[in-house]
Amino acid sequence: MEIYLDNSATTRVYPEVAELMKQIMLEDYGNPSSVHNKGFDAGNHVKLARIRIAAALKAKEKEILFTSGGTESDNLALIGGAKANQRAGKHIITTKIEHPAVLKTFEYLEKEGFETDYLGVDELGRISLDELKSKLRPDTILVSVMHTNNEVGAVEPITEAGAIIKAFNPKILFHVDAVQGFGKAEIIPSKAKIDLLSISSHKIHGPKGVGALYVRDGVRLIPISYGGGQQDGLRSGTLNTPGIAGMGLAAELVTKDLQSKRDKLVEIKNAFLKTVSEIPNVKVNGCERAENGDFKVEETAPHIINISVPGMRSEVMLHALEEKGIYVSAGSACSSHSKKESSTLKAMGADAADMDGALRFSMSEATSMEDMMTAASELKAVIEKFGRYVRG
Amino acid sequence: MEIYLDNSATTRVYPEVAELMKQIMLEDYGNPSSVHNKGFDAGNHVKLARIRIAAALKAKEKEILFTSGGTESDNLALIGGAKANQRAGKHIITTKIEHPAVLKTFEYLEKEGFETDYLGVDELGRISLDELKSKLRPDTILVSVMHTNNEVGAVEPITEAGAIIKAFNPKILFHVDAVQGFGKAEIIPSKAKIDLLSISSHKIHGPKGVGALYVRDGVRLIPISYGGGQQDGLRSGTLNTPGIAGMGLAAELVTKDLQSKRDKLVEIKNAFLKTVSEIPNVKVNGCERAENGDFKVEETAPHIINISVPGMRSEVMLHALEEKGIYVSAGSACSSHSKKESSTLKAMGADAADMDGALRFSMSEATSMEDMMTAASELKAVIEKFGRYVRG
Repeated sequence: MEIYLDNSATTRVYPEVAELMKQIMLEDYGNPSSVHNKGFDAGNHVKLARIRIAAALKAKEKEILFTSGGTESDNLALIGGAKANQRAGKHIITTKIEHPAVLKTFEYLEKEGFETDYLGVDELGRISLDELKSKLRPDTILVSVMHTNNEVGAVEPITEAGAIIKAFNPKILFHVDAVQGFGKAEIIPSKAKIDLLSISSHKIHGPKGVGALYVRDGVRLIPISYGGGQQDGLRSGTLNTPGIAGMGLAAELVTKDLQSKRDKLVEIKNAFLKTVSEIPNVKVNGCERAENGDFKVEETAPHIINISVPGMRSEVMLHALEEKGIYVSAGSACSSHSKKESSTLKAMGADAADMDGALRFSMSEATSMEDMMTAASELKAVIEKFGRYVRG
Repeated sequence: MEIYLDNSATTRVYPEVAELMKQIMLEDYGNPSSVHNKGFDAGNHVKLARIRIAAALKAKEKEILFTSGGTESDNLALIGGAKANQRAGKHIITTKIEHPAVLKTFEYLEKEGFETDYLGVDELGRISLDELKSKLRPDTILVSVMHTNNEVGAVEPITEAGAIIKAFNPKILFHVDAVQGFGKAEIIPSKAKIDLLSISSHKIHGPKGVGALYVRDGVRLIPISYGGGQQDGLRSGTLNTPGIAGMGLAAELVTKDLQSKRDKLVEIKNAFLKTVSEIPNVKVNGCERAENGDFKVEETAPHIINISVPGMRSEVMLHALEEKGIYVSAGSACSSHSKKESSTLKAMGADAADMDGALRFSMSEATSMEDMMTAASELKAVIEKFGRYVRG
């Protein structure tokens, strides 16, 4: 048995995507910068990918820039956006629960002389629009709020935040890290007044090593690396045609029938949460229960589930589940084996025991109800087995 | 007929590499940062790639850092190296014939307050060691010299340069852009006293979107992007396991039987140059002729051939050859369709007509003598056909 429930760390590539990439690597392997047919054919794959991603975001093709992944997209948006606009002010705002690609970049910008503010979140991981409003200043030039939190699946009020920011000052750049949200929720940057939006390919069944940054038409960024001047000088380096084409196809496939995929995940997440919340000592993080007993899954990311078993260590449960062929995460895989506490759970007010005993189950469109019911019963067995010692 | 002679722009991926990548994308698709088996399996592909690339460079595994390509490797080496050492001085040296990934990064560093010097080259594209010696100063902290020039195939005296630099001051960082040289010549960083060496996967029949930077054990760099802290905090972002594994396998395959592959290319280049130099009005760039009539190919990159047909435009010849299924370049494809003059040919003292009429034929290990003899006779036909109008 193998049940992969670490899709927020990374996903299995769609077979059609892997096949397309192989074909490009062996046949249309030219450099899009070459002026002969071989370069032209390669360039067409990039164009099609741009069309596909623009379509998924209801954006213009020229608003899509390709990068090496979500981390580079975030770095380029934040460093490139802040430095391009520093004459207007040096105050930048983000939240306490961002991915390290945003938080660490804010730390860098702080060293570069920018003044930073971090928005807190409530017990469900959501920012307060009032706090956002109160933090905006005349010298604020950039606000970065993630669409979907990678650890607990909180979905931030992006549209409302965009309206508040732009009402205060339309020149403030609004960046959204949509690495976990894209492909799971409909995201239309122009509707939410988003200027910059980061997405990653390997979270949507596309290849690793490629990402995109939506840059609203008219927004000026300063590049963060230098070279051959590809992509209008904003991102130098030979275009990764197979990766870009793979990401484009993945974006088209993942957003196809999005509503029905969401409905299915919502149903599974609700059923899973109802089942595991029956297990003594299990706490659900980031998702409220309604009066009828259902969980308010619609208000969260339908694919991310976070629970805590206070008194038990995440790693113990993770490895016990792994022995059964069930792959989950002790938090976020993005921090590279680091043992640090979860900044998201901490900001939500969780105590040390909740953080030490947190587990993340992250699903994909390939996850079935049966998979999750198996995971729930195996989790129960693990808690019962180890719980005896822990609480004994 | 299809004869691809633009291998310095990019190469066809080895079928074994494409197959390995597909397998990883569909089976070992985990995130190396995940602590379960699925992450462990993915991490093993990265380890093997590191072993393979380290073996090709006779380096230690921990000296290999993965990036998104040659451009990022150059940026990280130069910006990261210069900024990490700026307390010791702010003087940095490179050559006039570097790839834009180095030249444009030097321009950026100049704006950041670094003082730059650019070494000239002789009519064959080679730097002068005396000039290098004369430019070294007590506040010099970094010297960057490419291994093989991408436009004309000049091979720089890297080992001699390394000895001079380190004799002057062992603390000066020596960076070598080996994007065009790796896989075509034996390169051992420790022998040549190299601290930082950039290589790119897609120039050696590996996938696009991945590169590596050799960082000598003990050399400290400052990162140029921020995030999850992967690769010891020096290069954040989910590791591109299929791309890295593909590059590792490509590095192993391309350096296998290197001497016999070189010998074959040397023979072909010599025969091609002897044939085309018989065509009236053809000038050979970057390769001298010996008294016995042979070309001194051993002193150059065996896979890169650059000629000029003064009075004819590169693009005209390129597209005429393209109609015959022969793909060549009007210079470097790396500058993304830009129409700028060649900085390499200019530094070599070429005049406008030589630059306007320059063509690059770049071979790979798959190129045959027959391919090149066909290319030579088609080139002759093109020159005869169009030459009538041009010179008429």
